Amino acid sequence: MSKLLIVGTLAFDAIETPFGKTDKILGGAATYIGLSAANFGIQSGIVSVVGGDFPEEYLKMLNAKQVDTQGVEIVKDGKTFFWSGRYHNDMNSRDTLVTELNVLEQFNPKVPQDFKDAGIVLLGNLHPLVQNAVLEQLEVTPKLVVLDTMNFWMDIALPELKEVIQKVDVITINDEEARQLSGEYSLRVAARKIQAMGPKYVVIKKGEHGALLFGEDQIFFAPALPLEEVFDPTGAGDTFAGGFAGYLTKTKDISFENMKNAIVYGSNMASFCVEKFGTERMQNLTKEEIFDRLEQFKSLTQYEMSLSK
Amino acid sequence: MSKLLIVGTLAFDAIETPFGKTDKILGGAATYIGLSAANFGIQSGIVSVVGGDFPEEYLKMLNAKQVDTQGVEIVKDGKTFFWSGRYHNDMNSRDTLVTELNVLEQFNPKVPQDFKDAGIVLLGNLHPLVQNAVLEQLEVTPKLVVLDTMNFWMDIALPELKEVIQKVDVITINDEEARQLSGEYSLRVAARKIQAMGPKYVVIKKGEHGALLFGEDQIFFAPALPLEEVFDPTGAGDTFAGGFAGYLTKTKDISFENMKNAIVYGSNMASFCVEKFGTERMQNLTKEEIFDRLEQFKSLTQYEMSLSK
Repeated sequence: MSKLLIVGTLAFDAIETPFGKTDKILGGAATYIGLSAANFGIQSGIVSVVGGDFPEEYLKMLNAKQVDTQGVEIVKDGKTFFWSGRYHNDMNSRDTLVTELNVLEQFNPKVPQDFKDAGIVLLGNLHPLVQNAVLEQLEVTPKLVVLDTMNFWMDIALPELKEVIQKVDVITINDEEARQLSGEYSLRVAARKIQAMGPKYVVIKKGEHGALLFGEDQIFFAPALPLEEVFDPTGAGDTFAGGFAGYLTKTKDISFENMKNAIVYGSNMASFCVEKFGTERMQNLTKEEIFDRLEQFKSLTQYEMSLSK
Repeated sequence: MSKLLIVGTLAFDAIETPFGKTDKILGGAATYIGLSAANFGIQSGIVSVVGGDFPEEYLKMLNAKQVDTQGVEIVKDGKTFFWSGRYHNDMNSRDTLVTELNVLEQFNPKVPQDFKDAGIVLLGNLHPLVQNAVLEQLEVTPKLVVLDTMNFWMDIALPELKEVIQKVDVITINDEEARQLSGEYSLRVAARKIQAMGPKYVVIKKGEHGALLFGEDQIFFAPALPLEEVFDPTGAGDTFAGGFAGYLTKTKDISFENMKNAIVYGSNMASFCVEKFGTERMQNLTKEEIFDRLEQFKSLTQYEMSLSK
């Protein structure tokens, strides 16, 4: 069975949207990635860190979905990373209210032996030095390394970020971050500049406006599914990345053609994530729901047209 | 041959973008619609009004492209509609600097006898009373009536706009206008509310983020082509509408499946429009360029995926 190694945060989130607010609930990039990738029948494992306050049931929930948590360090006398944010009415922008790094401040990732030969590695949003430290522990060169990052690291650790970007095959960032990283407004020009920094493929996430995949001379686009309501966008980008990497891990085919499918699978997973608060929808998702919605995605963009008309 | 009746402005535009500025150049909704529809080998005719200052060569240029201008009234001692605007750096927003309605203020449209049996009617952006007056002159019920409008008419002539909306089959508006007209943020909910006002189909134009087509129980989406640079967005929406209506007029098939193709053709035409100032690109467009780019559109969104994997 193919293996996916996931690096990212396990966290507590407190979220406010126009639909309501939550207490501290389960969150974090690795959580969303793991829950998304869990739908592909692959072997996945998380490298992360939590405090003694992190409920064991959360790890058990992940394990029950075949997500390995051997690589999750538990700092007994430490506190788990905490993030709190409030979404604006349009759901496209948010204010961060609280960020408590806690155990993340001194995190030295340790890749379990079982995952040192992972075929695909997804470096979720974390300090670039942590992402880099994971790459250095691998014993077999992965088929594909995917890196997700955000503007925060561009602001405070750009040289370190650029160093890890050099080493990856795919980078996934949002449109504003692509513009910040490249200094270019046109996403097409931005993608080319970012490719020159290392990654052969650039995925630009545009939230409700879909996602673009740039290859060598090819571009692919998949929209987000137009939903009746977006309830909570938290974790949508990580869920997208988890679906993307999960599908590639399962199919073991990293051609551009198959990456198109991975983009569609990622978008499909993200469309569920936003329907409820936090991870609730992702914890209770059936194969039937996933396949039904893939059909919706297909009819949303596929057409039959003879160009000779 | 199928006939397309086009209603809309013929205008002078003065445009400023980060790439430069123009003097008074040819513009107007009907101009862009006509130039776009001209690529489909159909019989099209414009109903509009200009002043004595409107160069005859502009009408001749349209005629040379088989766009009939019998329905263009020339008010010898009047002045042509003039619009001036400045685009912001992101090209997604603009300030209107000048609007001089001039001959539009007292415009009574007259549909030429040749077009009173048009199969498809495209009511371009104009006062809803003008749009309505055109519908009342038709002698044969068209197969399809498409209405384009904007927030301006929602602000100053909402009852008249709602009356004409009741009578049309397709409405094309942008995302903000769909929200304003429906009072709903979710575009999916907004489309449903607008459908309840009359039109069976709602097309929501999202500019660089593509276009959505809502039918009875179906949704289709086509992205805008990611371009290296957008030079001047003026007329892109009208060019899109002209491609949409032109393709449907040519193929005489108004099924949802064929409307998908029409949306792709419309997006394709709009992708050229924005590459140069004003109508320049649309005046000099070859069949080869159009077909080459349709192939690009196809590879941008089409994929082969077995869902049984």
